[in-house]
Amino acid sequence: MKKVVLIRHGESVWNMENRFTGWTDVDLSAKGVQEAHEAGKLLKEKGFQFDMAYTSYLKRAIKTLNVVLEEMDQLWIPVEKSWRLNEKHYGNLQGLNKAETAEKYGDAQVKIWRRSYDVAPNPLDASDSRDPQQEAKYAGVDKKLLPHTEALKDTVARIVPYWTETIVPALKHQDEILIAAHGNSLRGIIKHIKGISDDDIVSLNLPTAVPYLFEFDDDMNLLKDEFLGDPEKIKALMEAVANQGKAKK
Amino acid sequence: MKKVVLIRHGESVWNMENRFTGWTDVDLSAKGVQEAHEAGKLLKEKGFQFDMAYTSYLKRAIKTLNVVLEEMDQLWIPVEKSWRLNEKHYGNLQGLNKAETAEKYGDAQVKIWRRSYDVAPNPLDASDSRDPQQEAKYAGVDKKLLPHTEALKDTVARIVPYWTETIVPALKHQDEILIAAHGNSLRGIIKHIKGISDDDIVSLNLPTAVPYLFEFDDDMNLLKDEFLGDPEKIKALMEAVANQGKAKK
Repeated sequence: MKKVVLIRHGESVWNMENRFTGWTDVDLSAKGVQEAHEAGKLLKEKGFQFDMAYTSYLKRAIKTLNVVLEEMDQLWIPVEKSWRLNEKHYGNLQGLNKAETAEKYGDAQVKIWRRSYDVAPNPLDASDSRDPQQEAKYAGVDKKLLPHTEALKDTVARIVPYWTETIVPALKHQDEILIAAHGNSLRGIIKHIKGISDDDIVSLNLPTAVPYLFEFDDDMNLLKDEFLGDPEKIKALMEAVANQGKAKK
Repeated sequence: MKKVVLIRHGESVWNMENRFTGWTDVDLSAKGVQEAHEAGKLLKEKGFQFDMAYTSYLKRAIKTLNVVLEEMDQLWIPVEKSWRLNEKHYGNLQGLNKAETAEKYGDAQVKIWRRSYDVAPNPLDASDSRDPQQEAKYAGVDKKLLPHTEALKDTVARIVPYWTETIVPALKHQDEILIAAHGNSLRGIIKHIKGISDDDIVSLNLPTAVPYLFEFDDDMNLLKDEFLGDPEKIKALMEAVANQGKAKK
C-alpha cells in the first residue's frame, strides 16, 4: 500500500488580506503557522512516517512543511522543492484585493479569473520586477517554461508531468509521501489522480493545512481518498475558501 | 571563485545543560534559535546567495539551517541531509552532564574523551534503544557504517568521503554552498581542507552559529578562510566552548 498526503499551506498574510497571491512569495500568518502545527500533530497522531516530502519554491508551502515535519519529529527526511508545485500564476491580478477587484469588475468576472479552467488573467508585464524570469530563484529553470500568467489549465499542464515523472517513480521504492503545496497545484494533482472533469475541478475548494490522504495499491490504483480531521470543521473551511472571491456586503 | 560557509548549530538544550549530546536528537534552546537568526541576518547583509545547502540528520542543525535560510529569504534552495554530517557519536557518555562526569572521572579523562583524536568513549550497548541501528531514521544506512561510539578520528573518517565525493563535485557547477552541522563533523572538514594535524585539530573550538567562510579558486585551492562577525565576540565564544568540559568550581 502506498500513501500520499497532500497539504495546502496554512493561511498566508495575503489569504488573510484576501489578495491574489499566485507566485508572490508572501509569508504565513500567525494563524497559518498555528494551522501547520495542528496538521503536524494530527499526522503524528495518525502514525504517518514519511519517506520523502515535496514542496514548492514558495515560503508559505516550505514553512508549512517544516512546521509539520518538526511536529512529527521527521525533519531529517529528504525534501525536494520544485517550481512546478508553485501556486497558479495570477498574472497582473497578483497583489490586488479580491473583494475590491470583485466590486470593480463584478463577481462574475472575478469568478472567471479565479475559477474558470482555461481563462487566464492578463499577464504581468515582462519588464515587471515580479516576473519570474527576473527572479534569481528561477534562474535554473528554462525561461520558456516560466509563466507570466496562468489559467488553471496551464497549472495542471505543468504539475502533471511532475506527478508522473518524479513522484510516481519515487513511490516504487517509498511507501509514504507528503506534498506541501498550494490550492491550484494540488487541484492539478487531484484532477489527474481522480479523473475529475475540467468543469468540476474548479469547484473543489481545498481548506488550508488540512491533510488530504490518498491510498493506492502497489500498481498505483486509487483505493480511497479522505480528508483527515474533524469533518464539520473541514466543511466550514471549504466554504470559507469558496466565498473568498465574493464582494464584501 | 567558490565559497563554502560552515556553520555550527546554535546552542542546544543540552549545550545549555552541559551534557554530552552526540547523536541524541536534542532541540535548539531559545538562545540557539536567536543565534541562528543573527547568523542569517549577517549572511544576508554580506550578500551571500547560496546555490545549495547541506545538513545532518539532527534537528539542531536542520533547524539552524532553516532559520538561517528564512532570514536570507533563501528557503527555496535545495537542501541535502546526510547522517555523515552528524555530530561525533559520544557512546555511553551521551546524556551525562560534562561537569559531573569531570568530577567523577577527573578533568583529564573527560578531556581525553572530548578532545583526544583517537580515543573513543565506551560504546552504547547494542541493545540500547538509543543505538542508531534501532532508529527508523538510520534504516536506509548500511548498518556496518553506523557507529556505537566514535573517536574524532572515526568522525573524520566518515565525513571526509562526503566532502570529497559529494560537496566538492557539487562545487564544479555551484559557487556558494552552506553547510550547517556540528562541532566535530565540521572539525573533520576543516582538518581536511586546511591540512591540520591530529594533535592540533582537537584544540580548534568552533563557536555556535558563527559563519566560517572558506574561499577557493576554481581548482579548489584554498585562498582564504575567516570567521564572519565581530572578532572579539567570536574569541569569547571560542573560549567558552573550550571551558565546557572542565569541572565546575
